[in-house]
Amino acid sequence: MLSIEEALDHIARHARPLDSVQAPIGEALGRVLAEEIASDVDSPPHDKSIVDGYAIRAADVAASGTRLKVVEEVVAGDVPRQAVEAGGATRIMTGAPLPDGADAVVMVEQTEHVAVEGAPLGHVVIQSERVIVGQNIMRQASSMRRGETVLQVGHLLRPAEIGLLAEVGRTVACVVRQPKVAVLSTGNELVPPDQTPVAGQIRNSNGAMLLACAQRAGAQTTDLGIGRDDHESLGGLIGKGLQSDVLLISGGVSAGVLDLVPSVLGKLGVRQVFHKVAVKPGKPLWFGVLESNSSTKLVFGLPGNPVSSLVCFELFVRPALAALSGESFEPRQTVAASLAGGFDQRGERVTYYPAQLNEHVDGRVVAPLSWKGSGDLRTLAAANALICFPAGTRRFEAGETVQVM
Amino acid sequence: MLSIEEALDHIARHARPLDSVQAPIGEALGRVLAEEIASDVDSPPHDKSIVDGYAIRAADVAASGTRLKVVEEVVAGDVPRQAVEAGGATRIMTGAPLPDGADAVVMVEQTEHVAVEGAPLGHVVIQSERVIVGQNIMRQASSMRRGETVLQVGHLLRPAEIGLLAEVGRTVACVVRQPKVAVLSTGNELVPPDQTPVAGQIRNSNGAMLLACAQRAGAQTTDLGIGRDDHESLGGLIGKGLQSDVLLISGGVSAGVLDLVPSVLGKLGVRQVFHKVAVKPGKPLWFGVLESNSSTKLVFGLPGNPVSSLVCFELFVRPALAALSGESFEPRQTVAASLAGGFDQRGERVTYYPAQLNEHVDGRVVAPLSWKGSGDLRTLAAANALICFPAGTRRFEAGETVQVM
Repeated sequence: MLSIEEALDHIARHARPLDSVQAPIGEALGRVLAEEIASDVDSPPHDKSIVDGYAIRAADVAASGTRLKVVEEVVAGDVPRQAVEAGGATRIMTGAPLPDGADAVVMVEQTEHVAVEGAPLGHVVIQSERVIVGQNIMRQASSMRRGETVLQVGHLLRPAEIGLLAEVGRTVACVVRQPKVAVLSTGNELVPPDQTPVAGQIRNSNGAMLLACAQRAGAQTTDLGIGRDDHESLGGLIGKGLQSDVLLISGGVSAGVLDLVPSVLGKLGVRQVFHKVAVKPGKPLWFGVLESNSSTKLVFGLPGNPVSSLVCFELFVRPALAALSGESFEPRQTVAASLAGGFDQRGERVTYYPAQLNEHVDGRVVAPLSWKGSGDLRTLAAANALICFPAGTRRFEAGETVQVM
Repeated sequence: MLSIEEALDHIARHARPLDSVQAPIGEALGRVLAEEIASDVDSPPHDKSIVDGYAIRAADVAASGTRLKVVEEVVAGDVPRQAVEAGGATRIMTGAPLPDGADAVVMVEQTEHVAVEGAPLGHVVIQSERVIVGQNIMRQASSMRRGETVLQVGHLLRPAEIGLLAEVGRTVACVVRQPKVAVLSTGNELVPPDQTPVAGQIRNSNGAMLLACAQRAGAQTTDLGIGRDDHESLGGLIGKGLQSDVLLISGGVSAGVLDLVPSVLGKLGVRQVFHKVAVKPGKPLWFGVLESNSSTKLVFGLPGNPVSSLVCFELFVRPALAALSGESFEPRQTVAASLAGGFDQRGERVTYYPAQLNEHVDGRVVAPLSWKGSGDLRTLAAANALICFPAGTRRFEAGETVQVM
C-alpha cells in the first residue's frame, strides 16, 4: 500500500498544466498567466504629485510662513502650461503631472491660501519649516518602464494583477484554462436527493458535495448523477465523464463484489496508476490516467463514504486541480496546534479526524469532535479542521502538539 | 479623524444581512443559511457495516481460526433476508444493513473464504482472536435522527454542508442573497484599459481591480466604467450604482477642488457617516448610506490610488460584504511575523505596507518590498501580505515581531 507522499508523487507526475486560452480580464481572476506581460507605458507616465497641494521649488522655503504666488491650477488629467519659477507655486491635485521647475509638493494641509488683489489665483503660505527635494513626488517610470516585463508566465492573477493588466492596456490575457471536472456517484443503494429513500437506500450526498469541492477549487463542473453497479450504466457515464479533464467517481473502488469501477475504467483505456493508500479514511483511493497525444485525463476513484471522499479530495484532488490550473503542485499545508483532549490513535494508517480549531491569544487549540465514522457528514459540518494523527497505536494526551489541516 | 476601529464600528452598524432567496444546492456554496434544516431521515437509516466483510455473532469467536457457515450475501442497496444464527455469517458490503442476529462485522482482510460441498456460499474462517460486539457497525440514527435539527440559521455552506443538505433531501435551501456590488472609477485623467493614454492621462486600473476584489469576496458585480469630474456624469452613474447593495467609487474623495463625489452623493440622498480614517494608505476613505424602508445601500468612496483602494477594500469593504452575506462582521485577521529588514515608520497613521511573507520551519518571516508609493501596483503584484505598522515615528529593526495581514 502506498504512503500519502508516494501517492502524491504519482499524481504530481501526471497533473500537468492544461492548454491556455485568451480570457477577458473580468473573467481571469484566479487563473494563471500563460504569457509574459510587458508594460506599454511608463508608470507613472510623468513625475506626479501623490498628494493634493502646491508644487514649489524646495529652495524657496527657508522657514515656516514663506509666501509664494500661485501661478496655475493643475488637476489630474490636465497638463501644466506654466513652469514654476523662484517665488511661484502651482496648485496641484493628486496624480497630476509636476510642472517644470518644481521639485517638491507641499500637501494642502500644511498650507494656507490667501486672496490677493492683482494675483488672480492668490498666494499660498507654506506652514512648514523645511521642504525636501522630491517630497510627495512619484518619479516618471519609477513603478515600471515602457517595455519592461511586469508579470511572468506562471503568475497567479489576483485583484492586484488584474489591475496591473488594465494599467498596461491588457483587456485580454493568455491564461491556463480552468479545469473541467465531472462527478459520478456509483451504487445501487443511492437515490437522488429529491427522492425519499426506502429500506436499504440512501440519498446521493457525495455528488453534490464533490461538485461543491470542485467549484471551490476553481473548476467547471459536470454532474453525471448516479451510476448503477452494472457495466453498461457505468460504461456510458464514465465515457461521458472522460470528456472532462478530471473524472471523480465516488464508490465502487473498495473490495466489494460489485466494485466494477476499475474494470470498466480499464476497458475504456484508463490505465491504473495506483490503488489503495495508507490513509484513514480513504484507503480504497484509486487513481488512473487516460493518455492520448493531446491530453492526459485524470481519474480518481474516491471511497463511497462522504467523509472519506472529502478527505481524499482535499489531500489528493485539490493539489492536482491546482497543477492543472498552472499553479505548483503543493500538498495541503498543515499547522501545529495543541490538542484540547486525549485521543486514542490506532492502526497502521495516518488518520485525518474532524475537529474544531480555535485561535487563542497563546496559540491554536484543536478539539477532536465526537465523530461517528466516515458516513457522518453531520459532524463534519460542525468541523473546521482535520487533525492529522501519524500511523501507529498510541494515546495522544491533552496539550500535545498535533498537525492540523 | 476616526481610528480604523471606530470606522469599522460605523460600518458594522449599517452592514446587515440581506434578504434571503431559495437557492438550488448546486449554487449555494459559500452562501449562509437563512432557515433551520431538520433531517427527514435517520442516518444511517439502519445499523450498517462500515467495512466489506462478514456479519457475525461476536460470541461465536473464541479463538483465531473459528469457522462459520456463510448464509447470505448482502450488498449496499439490498435488504438482508436471513438472520445470522449461532455458527453463521453473512457476507456484507460497506454500507449494507446489518442482518438480524449479527452484532459485529469482521473485515474481509481478517478472514479467509473456503468452498465447501453442500454449502452453496461456503464457509468463512475468522483470522482474529477476538471480536468485539459492535465492531465495524455504525448504529441507526447515530449521525442524525429524523426530525432533528442538523444545520442552524447562519451556518456557512461549505462542501460538507452541501452534502448534508442532499442527504436530508434538500435540493433547494433558503440562503442569504449574494450582495450586488457596483464599481465606478472617477477622474478626468482616466481612459479605459483598451485605450492608449496621452499626456496627463492614465488607464483606469482601479475599476478592473475592484471588480476582481468584489468577485473574490463572493459578490455579483456591475461595472459602471469611468465617471467624469462633473455633476451630470457622476449623478447619472452614481444613481445607477445605487441600484446595487454596495457602490464602490474610486477617486474623488480627497481634498482636491474637483472632488465632487460627496456632494453628488448628498444630492442623491446618501447620508455621510464618516470621511477620513487614520490609515496609510487610505486616509480619504468616505462612507455613507442610502436608507429606505426596505433596504440600506452602502457607499464607499475609496481613494483613487490603486494600492490605497485595495487596502481600503480589504480593511473595510470585505468585512461589510461578509456581513451583508449573513456572516459575522469580522475585521481582517492578522498574524505575527518576524521582520526580515529594518523599516522606518513615520507619521500619525497606522501604515499597511506591501511585503513578502514566507513560512519557515522556525516561524513566519516578512520582508517589506521596495514600494514606490500608493500608485505602485507592480510592487503590490509581487507582494503576498501587508505589514501593519502602528502609528508613531520610530525605526523597526530586523527580527522585531510585527503584525501581518
